Amino acid sequence: MTETSALITDFYELTMMHGYYLEHHDARAVFDMFYRTNPFQGGYTIFTGIEELIDKLEGLSFSREDIEYLDSLGIFDKGFLEYLRTYRFHGDVYAFDEGTPAFPGEPLIRVESDLMDAQLVETLILNSVNFETLIATKASRMTLATKGHGNIMEFGLRRAQGENGAHSASRASFIGGTKSTSNTFAGKKFGIPVAGTMAHSWIMSYGSEEEAFRKFVEIYPDNGILLIDTYDTLGSGIEAAIKIGLEQKAKGKRIGVRIDSGDLSYLTKEIRSRLDEAGLEDATICVSNDLTEEIIKSLVSDGAPIDSWGIGTHLVTGGSQASLNGVYKLSAKEENGTMVPCLKVSNSYEKTTNPGIKQVYRFFDKQGGALADLITLDEEKIETGHNITFHHPFSTADFFIMKKDRYSSFTPLLTKKMENGRRVSPSPSLSEIQRTSAEKLAAFDKSYKRLINPHIYKVSLSENLRNLKTELLVKTRAKESEVKNS
Amino acid sequence: MTETSALITDFYELTMMHGYYLEHHDARAVFDMFYRTNPFQGGYTIFTGIEELIDKLEGLSFSREDIEYLDSLGIFDKGFLEYLRTYRFHGDVYAFDEGTPAFPGEPLIRVESDLMDAQLVETLILNSVNFETLIATKASRMTLATKGHGNIMEFGLRRAQGENGAHSASRASFIGGTKSTSNTFAGKKFGIPVAGTMAHSWIMSYGSEEEAFRKFVEIYPDNGILLIDTYDTLGSGIEAAIKIGLEQKAKGKRIGVRIDSGDLSYLTKEIRSRLDEAGLEDATICVSNDLTEEIIKSLVSDGAPIDSWGIGTHLVTGGSQASLNGVYKLSAKEENGTMVPCLKVSNSYEKTTNPGIKQVYRFFDKQGGALADLITLDEEKIETGHNITFHHPFSTADFFIMKKDRYSSFTPLLTKKMENGRRVSPSPSLSEIQRTSAEKLAAFDKSYKRLINPHIYKVSLSENLRNLKTELLVKTRAKESEVKNS
Repeated sequence: MTETSALITDFYELTMMHGYYLEHHDARAVFDMFYRTNPFQGGYTIFTGIEELIDKLEGLSFSREDIEYLDSLGIFDKGFLEYLRTYRFHGDVYAFDEGTPAFPGEPLIRVESDLMDAQLVETLILNSVNFETLIATKASRMTLATKGHGNIMEFGLRRAQGENGAHSASRASFIGGTKSTSNTFAGKKFGIPVAGTMAHSWIMSYGSEEEAFRKFVEIYPDNGILLIDTYDTLGSGIEAAIKIGLEQKAKGKRIGVRIDSGDLSYLTKEIRSRLDEAGLEDATICVSNDLTEEIIKSLVSDGAPIDSWGIGTHLVTGGSQASLNGVYKLSAKEENGTMVPCLKVSNSYEKTTNPGIKQVYRFFDKQGGALADLITLDEEKIETGHNITFHHPFSTADFFIMKKDRYSSFTPLLTKKMENGRRVSPSPSLSEIQRTSAEKLAAFDKSYKRLINPHIYKVSLSENLRNLKTELLVKTRAKESEVKNS
Repeated sequence: MTETSALITDFYELTMMHGYYLEHHDARAVFDMFYRTNPFQGGYTIFTGIEELIDKLEGLSFSREDIEYLDSLGIFDKGFLEYLRTYRFHGDVYAFDEGTPAFPGEPLIRVESDLMDAQLVETLILNSVNFETLIATKASRMTLATKGHGNIMEFGLRRAQGENGAHSASRASFIGGTKSTSNTFAGKKFGIPVAGTMAHSWIMSYGSEEEAFRKFVEIYPDNGILLIDTYDTLGSGIEAAIKIGLEQKAKGKRIGVRIDSGDLSYLTKEIRSRLDEAGLEDATICVSNDLTEEIIKSLVSDGAPIDSWGIGTHLVTGGSQASLNGVYKLSAKEENGTMVPCLKVSNSYEKTTNPGIKQVYRFFDKQGGALADLITLDEEKIETGHNITFHHPFSTADFFIMKKDRYSSFTPLLTKKMENGRRVSPSPSLSEIQRTSAEKLAAFDKSYKRLINPHIYKVSLSENLRNLKTELLVKTRAKESEVKNS
């Protein structure tokens, strides 16, 4: 078990925790993690980060130096610091499985513990899951954009945000569908296949491209990928590559070429025909250079003959959208020994939270196609063979009926991941997560996966949850009016 | 000294290093790190990350497990793996001082070592400096946008990209001008003041806002910041805050309020007048909610009475631009015992690199105002009392003359930071870096610091460097033509 510093938290979590400690405010509390809008103008996310998060929560503690630091700030009670000395996360955690397609408003993680414990871990949860979910989603979108034309290699380390920002990005990218990483550390840590070609400096350190290529394939005879755009792609670059390619072919080996600049549609077609003319039909073409899903889509639709994609910046940072807006909100608290649902209202109606301890069910048709998701109270029983009312999440009068013969099965998406601060079952392997994630995503109609302007997948509230929300909202607004009129 | 895994590198650095090892290709080499365009449509960057990078380079090594992992890949020579076992970075590093304003095309870091050593560290250098420079620049822009109206608190941990993405962002933000962080770990690690207010869940865990606020100021009587937008900002929120504020005032204490939603211009004005009417003129107003430099600027120009800004997402990720496009290119290599300048040409003229071992001088007028930067060959002597020709970096015929009475001083920006892999001088404190960075930025006319569409600060080539570049470019193109015609 790796120790994780519990100082990796927003300072206010600690000041509030301290407050709860001094007030002996140790009621049970339930928090939901969810996000409000899909990133990249898309229709879904790939929920990711939970397995790394569980490891971090298991190892969460305050070291002696951490306690000394907090003491040095001069605002914390000695008894509280003593409490932190032996602190361990001890909550129960329910969550979607790693790699599951997810949608706005769904509780993706539910934390149940005493208020102090559940409060402290807010920031770590959001830091882990917001970022990895963003990147797995980006990778999924890029993978869809290739339409099966070539694999994606993740080349992001040099442009990633910090070291373990990079490592987590490599992991999340793989879950979203990339096939390898340039990040050697992530290769070792997560077992992701490592990949790479050569740098311009390799070419420049030799007298000519021909010499540089020949040295390279002597050392790496199997599928050596030659970078051909150091001086002149369609001149010296491709010519030297063909020469070496033919030498290798004579030895029963094949080569590939990589281009990292210029118009990738024009160049790849030209290079393909030059390679083919020379008899190097089996030579592969790899492209890179600030690729986005939009560029991939345009190259694929142009028919550019691309065998692999090296993608860094936009994949590992999210590009134009660098964060997922996931939040963590109180949904129930203990009062006089019973759990009471609670609500955060907002002047923006779509920001009013869903109260209570909840579950999410995904409904499928006979062919296994995903139909819609239903957020329910955890205590509700959902049974097949009945018509079920799906209420709109915001527009309280709006609903549709899921007919009993329309759906053939449903599955609960929140399952117990931690009990009393300990992992409940071992993490699946990363390849297993990648595989099941792709299978789950395949259950959705492609209209939901359109890169922009997708069909909106329905996430509804059960009748009981809708009624509870309405009741609490009316009660809160009435109470406010009293305050105003008093 | 902290050990840093040398596997934190792109895999191709290792395959190339392996190639150089097998070829006994241990020539000396010089690499430059530079970037090509300013982020955020702005006019400058704040160069940051070098001090953390030096620490990482000093601690760079391959652990036994790292070597075992590489061995398991089955492509590396045993002798090479043996070499890696005792590997330590042993290069010389020259760089701009941490926090120095920097411009496109300037060599910000110069690494001199043997080819294997200098190649291996490329990715780590880019990972460290690209990200921290991006974030320090963002923080600098946000600080400028406030025009001195209120301090910025960095609240980014929950939206940052990975854990140490967050820590490095907290550090870089502080260098760029923020005053505190919510990231407790970064507070401990870097000595940045920690700050925070309260969460909506604090309010929701009590029966009313009044009760929640009263409990809070009992524990934190000094400048307790009360979050007033949980239910109704201008209703129950501000009313409860005023009540508590008056109670605190009677005890000689003051409060602040924070709003995290709604129209921040309208609300802060309304709240200011409500607080003032109640006699709480000394109560402060803190705002947050997805702030960008554009929103800050608009609020300041609206005259919104804001005392502090809590900024997360856009500050610690860069927002719409999540990476700096810094690169690392070979500029000279040893041939037959002497260093020979080299050049990477490109079909995009602005991507052709500047050859040779270089220095950068910043020229100042009598008042200490920055005039222009000149990239020279390191061997050149620059002296005051002469007119100096500043050549355009791309347009080879274009130039201007820096008249001898126009400038009164200049200073070299690249200084030695590491010798033979060891730090040359201790790192300045973070506060010292923040202070000197602000002083250096103050030397630039405000037209260069306009948030968008700024005046372009001139970065020119010396006559010698321009001539060398021209000569090598012509030679390379001539050689390519030979290849084509042969």
